Amino acid sequence: MSLTLGKVYLIGAGPGAQDLMTLRGAKLLAQAQIVFYDALVDPEMLLLCPQAKLVAVGKRCGKLSTAQKFIDKQLVDAAKKYEHIVRLKGGDPMIFGRADEEIVALQEHDIAFEVVPGITSALAAAASVQSSLTLRGVSRSVAFVTMAKADQTISVDEIPKADTLIYYMGRKDGQRIAAQLIQAGRAIDTPVVVVESISTAKERKLFTNLQRLREGLLSEWSNPDAPAILMIGDAFSRVKEQQTRLDDLCFSEMDDRLQNFITLTNSKRCA
Amino acid sequence: MSLTLGKVYLIGAGPGAQDLMTLRGAKLLAQAQIVFYDALVDPEMLLLCPQAKLVAVGKRCGKLSTAQKFIDKQLVDAAKKYEHIVRLKGGDPMIFGRADEEIVALQEHDIAFEVVPGITSALAAAASVQSSLTLRGVSRSVAFVTMAKADQTISVDEIPKADTLIYYMGRKDGQRIAAQLIQAGRAIDTPVVVVESISTAKERKLFTNLQRLREGLLSEWSNPDAPAILMIGDAFSRVKEQQTRLDDLCFSEMDDRLQNFITLTNSKRCA
Repeated sequence: MSLTLGKVYLIGAGPGAQDLMTLRGAKLLAQAQIVFYDALVDPEMLLLCPQAKLVAVGKRCGKLSTAQKFIDKQLVDAAKKYEHIVRLKGGDPMIFGRADEEIVALQEHDIAFEVVPGITSALAAAASVQSSLTLRGVSRSVAFVTMAKADQTISVDEIPKADTLIYYMGRKDGQRIAAQLIQAGRAIDTPVVVVESISTAKERKLFTNLQRLREGLLSEWSNPDAPAILMIGDAFSRVKEQQTRLDDLCFSEMDDRLQNFITLTNSKRCA
Repeated sequence: MSLTLGKVYLIGAGPGAQDLMTLRGAKLLAQAQIVFYDALVDPEMLLLCPQAKLVAVGKRCGKLSTAQKFIDKQLVDAAKKYEHIVRLKGGDPMIFGRADEEIVALQEHDIAFEVVPGITSALAAAASVQSSLTLRGVSRSVAFVTMAKADQTISVDEIPKADTLIYYMGRKDGQRIAAQLIQAGRAIDTPVVVVESISTAKERKLFTNLQRLREGLLSEWSNPDAPAILMIGDAFSRVKEQQTRLDDLCFSEMDDRLQNFITLTNSKRCA
């Protein structure tokens, strides 16, 4: 059916670092004639496809649903002109990536496509803080969720019930997320790990808890415009212990408020 | 502290296919002196480290907790002998990978380590069936869970509450999982997608629903010893529509029971 059309590869770029791309994704990028890439894709990733025509299709935090339709149309048009088209999406295409809308558009036009998975942010963040998302006897399930769905918000009743919770694009909703989870019965000292600009040179990490998150800790932390993920649950208790040990070593003179803002990254500098 | 010791890289091998390894993982494998690998790691992955001494540390479905302690000890011993050690784990180390136990062992011995994330099975399975795990207006959260935790089982109350549910290593518990979800209020026609030996040449896919899963569909399907993932939720409704369309084209003469066993893979052969 699609013999006269090109093929579109929907490729997960991973969290940011160029070398967290898969071998398959890198090979397909190197063969691409044209690459449509997200605002969240790190520029160094595009060094993997110097031969390709590059088209930025910037979109952040689900803004502008018309923009999505325009991207769909661009992909369909490209498949009529090129043989090998890449759609490069931050993270993994199948988790909060809106790949489904592009897939429907391609299917409606009988355009061949293939999805290549990518490292989703939560996995790279877990690797960075060296803590499993699941933990025998402590956390047997992990849920990925986002508050940032256009005009909709998640109510307390809609919070996924899982031992570990990962909020994608959760920074701006940090206070509300914490308030909801405490209302839903989570302890106020439940560990919270925030990782910003995961896997890039700008990566920063913060360890805190639900109470401090509810108090608005994030509004003053680091770069408000950088993407950040919130990881919440007792699986991260051990990260807290290590953090505390490092704090004791390096920052015993600091007041409590300052300690709230100490990132794991900064703590390590003292070692 | 660990200047006289080697460094251990805990690397996610991804779901199976060699080229779904990350660039970083492949580079570190090529530099390894010794590689400890799981039973779930596909043999072709080891072609990425022909120079290394290979040590199989087979373990499946959480059996033998003493085996885990032995692996921990092997890693610590290797760090005293080699400079560059790789621990290669199926999927991603931080999701049901028991990396935490190895991490604790390494930390207790002040051995430097680094975690390199891998493509977790759910993402590769979603790519294969070309369906997002999250879907605007339908599925705003996805939970990863496993029933196979040593002697423990998950009760109805403990089922993660999320729109999309992914059961890792879920094949043997298929009937119980379906019964629990129906008891918890999920519709009997909720779509279920099963993917076996994800991303390898032996990959097989089955589309069904909760009612058929509860009736024991999986006990007769494909290879009972192959690892399989169960993906459940309305996010997969569109997979069902496509499947139905293909069924109508190719298998309209077959009886209902046979249709239950038609895999997406087989359906595609008719196109």
